[in-house]
Amino acid sequence: MSFETLLIEKATAADNIIKDYLPDVSGEQSIIMDAMHYAIEAGGKRLRPILMYETYKLFGGDKSEVIKPFMAAIEMIHTYSLVHDDLPAMDNDDLRRGKPTTHKVYGEAMGILAGDALLNYAFETMLKSYQNLHFSDDVKDIYYNIMRAMQILGVKSGIYGMLGGQVSDVQNTGLFPGKIELDDMYEKKTAALLEASMMIGAVLAGANVEEIKEVREIASNLGMAFQVRDDILDVTSDEATLGKPIGSDAKNEKTTYVTLFGLEEAKRWAKTYSDKALSGLKRLSGDTTFLEELFEYLIERNY
Amino acid sequence: MSFETLLIEKATAADNIIKDYLPDVSGEQSIIMDAMHYAIEAGGKRLRPILMYETYKLFGGDKSEVIKPFMAAIEMIHTYSLVHDDLPAMDNDDLRRGKPTTHKVYGEAMGILAGDALLNYAFETMLKSYQNLHFSDDVKDIYYNIMRAMQILGVKSGIYGMLGGQVSDVQNTGLFPGKIELDDMYEKKTAALLEASMMIGAVLAGANVEEIKEVREIASNLGMAFQVRDDILDVTSDEATLGKPIGSDAKNEKTTYVTLFGLEEAKRWAKTYSDKALSGLKRLSGDTTFLEELFEYLIERNY
Repeated sequence: MSFETLLIEKATAADNIIKDYLPDVSGEQSIIMDAMHYAIEAGGKRLRPILMYETYKLFGGDKSEVIKPFMAAIEMIHTYSLVHDDLPAMDNDDLRRGKPTTHKVYGEAMGILAGDALLNYAFETMLKSYQNLHFSDDVKDIYYNIMRAMQILGVKSGIYGMLGGQVSDVQNTGLFPGKIELDDMYEKKTAALLEASMMIGAVLAGANVEEIKEVREIASNLGMAFQVRDDILDVTSDEATLGKPIGSDAKNEKTTYVTLFGLEEAKRWAKTYSDKALSGLKRLSGDTTFLEELFEYLIERNY
Repeated sequence: MSFETLLIEKATAADNIIKDYLPDVSGEQSIIMDAMHYAIEAGGKRLRPILMYETYKLFGGDKSEVIKPFMAAIEMIHTYSLVHDDLPAMDNDDLRRGKPTTHKVYGEAMGILAGDALLNYAFETMLKSYQNLHFSDDVKDIYYNIMRAMQILGVKSGIYGMLGGQVSDVQNTGLFPGKIELDDMYEKKTAALLEASMMIGAVLAGANVEEIKEVREIASNLGMAFQVRDDILDVTSDEATLGKPIGSDAKNEKTTYVTLFGLEEAKRWAKTYSDKALSGLKRLSGDTTFLEELFEYLIERNY
């Protein structure tokens, strides 16, 4: 089976898991459930749940009832951040992946509440991981790992992770001083949730502290490569290929790797981060073939 | 010691716990921590943490390192809902308790992110409850109770609780059909988080299922009494006493107990709910003196 076919299969499987864990659209407040479904169904590559699941399998995880709620939860968190990012007071985007953004369809108040709902429901969903288990003596270690996994997602999505990155992004209007501050923002805005994906897969499969550290490092480099590649595509691609307007960084006076270092140097940085991510991945034991292909696909993407 | 003095003491103690668990204001994204502190410091009666702690003690709870993170977390969730409620797309309020609202001080984008940050950090904070414990065989039951407590707060603050109530509130513009729908909204908007406060206190202290059910019922009646009293005060009080403009329900075309039943009948409903809450409380074993006084204080309030 080709990598592309396999990826579509895995994304479809992730899609079904996410939808299984979304709330039913019912009751007096069904509009909010409807908005949550709409936001999630706007799509995406389901990259984070796939990364989580593949890492879980790599470390020998075999309890689908434990990992599935976390796969759904991380996609809810990723989606809530997009819904709030698109709001008029933030990026003020009317379209996402060619469809009207959530607040354009449901109104601004519901857009705010739908984002809140997805974030809150992500934590409710993670807790289904323990509800899915029958309470007995031998689940104590799994309980411990579930709480560690929740803690990772909490920290990586909050002010020390993704949300912190968004704060910096709001403040990034041409006045960013240099690479240290930019790296801090990229690490938080983009890498943190990828780190959470892989770390949670490893933690729930029972990986040891050293392995979890390695996995975090790999995902961090993947995130940096991914983000620098984004900076490059914003000046080298075209709207049809990218599916969104190019040149938006310049328009919004954003500091990027390209504005800091120029295009050629930015490309060298992208390669440095990519190489680190891939070589880290290859050092892990087990069959990393699919993950390697996924990394290459993400880093080489020209869309 | 008078009840008022005791209440101030307990509110101050709760205040200190909440502040202990707030993040330090530091790092590249210190503005968001600053906004979180500002929103929390805008004050309030710290009613939810106090209710939680008193219920915990009533059922014999004695591990302050387990209950404290939840006391801080529920106040963060209550505060995030106020921050988002005040946003221009929601109630568009410039002042809360006489101080500029969070988005008026930090801008609308930071207002959205500060609310998100408080919600996310609430879950991070709850998880400190298990981090505070040394991992050993005898903490298994506490782990289980911590996860149940997190689940309660997740559900009661989300679309089936407080957030669902806010959704209904946004939609409540004079077209609400009757008592069933209004009760559903009040139960979610106001009672749910009070239920969570008392239920979590009971769960973490090891109360049994029947006791948790009773406590939920008591808090539900307290919440309804509290909310109907709010409806009444909006027409009978004055701005100086209430600390906010009166008549806002009529101005915003809100359906309330007063618009549905008239003032006298609304007062009878408030008394019915109050009586139920108090008689339920008196049926619990243990010393409920302070809780009874607190209930009476909350229900009789004319501010």
